Amino acid sequence: MSSAKSGLQHTSRSRQTESANQKRAQIVESAAALFDQVGYYPTSMDDIARAVDLAKPTLYHYFGGKDAILLGIHEEFIDLILSKRRERDEAGGDDISQELYEVMFDIFELMRTHRGHVRVFFEHHRELPEGSHESAAAKRDEYFRLVRRLFEIGQEKGELKGDPELSAMALFGMCNWAYQWFRPNGRFTTEEVARYFHSLLLHGIAA
Amino acid sequence: MSSAKSGLQHTSRSRQTESANQKRAQIVESAAALFDQVGYYPTSMDDIARAVDLAKPTLYHYFGGKDAILLGIHEEFIDLILSKRRERDEAGGDDISQELYEVMFDIFELMRTHRGHVRVFFEHHRELPEGSHESAAAKRDEYFRLVRRLFEIGQEKGELKGDPELSAMALFGMCNWAYQWFRPNGRFTTEEVARYFHSLLLHGIAA
Repeated sequence: MSSAKSGLQHTSRSRQTESANQKRAQIVESAAALFDQVGYYPTSMDDIARAVDLAKPTLYHYFGGKDAILLGIHEEFIDLILSKRRERDEAGGDDISQELYEVMFDIFELMRTHRGHVRVFFEHHRELPEGSHESAAAKRDEYFRLVRRLFEIGQEKGELKGDPELSAMALFGMCNWAYQWFRPNGRFTTEEVARYFHSLLLHGIAA
Repeated sequence: MSSAKSGLQHTSRSRQTESANQKRAQIVESAAALFDQVGYYPTSMDDIARAVDLAKPTLYHYFGGKDAILLGIHEEFIDLILSKRRERDEAGGDDISQELYEVMFDIFELMRTHRGHVRVFFEHHRELPEGSHESAAAKRDEYFRLVRRLFEIGQEKGELKGDPELSAMALFGMCNWAYQWFRPNGRFTTEEVARYFHSLLLHGIAA
């Protein structure tokens, strides 16, 4: 009886946690869209509360302030892109050209699926809550190292030339900058741009 | 006598204008540095007045508000880069590879000489004063067209392949993104990075 009861309590607690997680995710998503459209500074906690249809005190129950939501956006974004890379890294794909393509495609896909997150992620590091900068930077650094490593492996295998650090910066520049111009329903799909930039990275555009 | 007097007045007026222009330039420069270091929103007109050692009412005499200074930064930056390109365009250099190198080098040079302007230019379009968005966008578009035109000419001459629009976006991505990572006294000079990216753009890094 007691074990059945605690089982029920456990289930009910899990459900509560699940529902709280869903609510947090919803807040992060709506805030990301607002920050993207209106800007981080001009958006108030009132605006966010209104967007997710919550009373302001309830919003504060989930997030202690706007910077805490900003951190939520950062973490969701970096965790997503990092987990994609780690998975592929562990799968140990040894076709370096294909691995590079997948890095580029992942970034473009996030620009399509997490549009609101992207601008915020790139433009608002310094507004993150005090004490969170280091762990956020650590994840960004891990991601950068995983990608630079691909260029190093390519060089060790004799497939790539040049400086792995600068090549990684060129890749990130081409892909990340697209948040300034890429439109999901424009002339090119995410896949087309990723393929074009991948080919340019490897072979250039000299005829 | 009267013409000598008006000549004197004229000289004195020119000097006043010159001195006012210098003061405006100084305000723009200091504000750009503050916006880069502290951020556009957290910087107040008080902070700017203090940085240029002016009383606040005197600062308002030169600029009607923070967004007017933002516009000053935008205009100085786009006018600089546009005039470099126009000059080279009029000089009619027909070595497309060299022209592309110069575009890339110009952007990196501005990252060194106008560091404060760059972040502000890229991240704060939407905060420009009402009524100024169109003319600012027109200049950015002109610059983009001048650069895209180089890729088109390269293609007409049979020297380049691919899509001129996407190639221009790749060039801007590689170069513009550098405001996020390039440090003037780091491992690479502006010229080294410009040369590396130029070679990557044309020939890629496949061994």
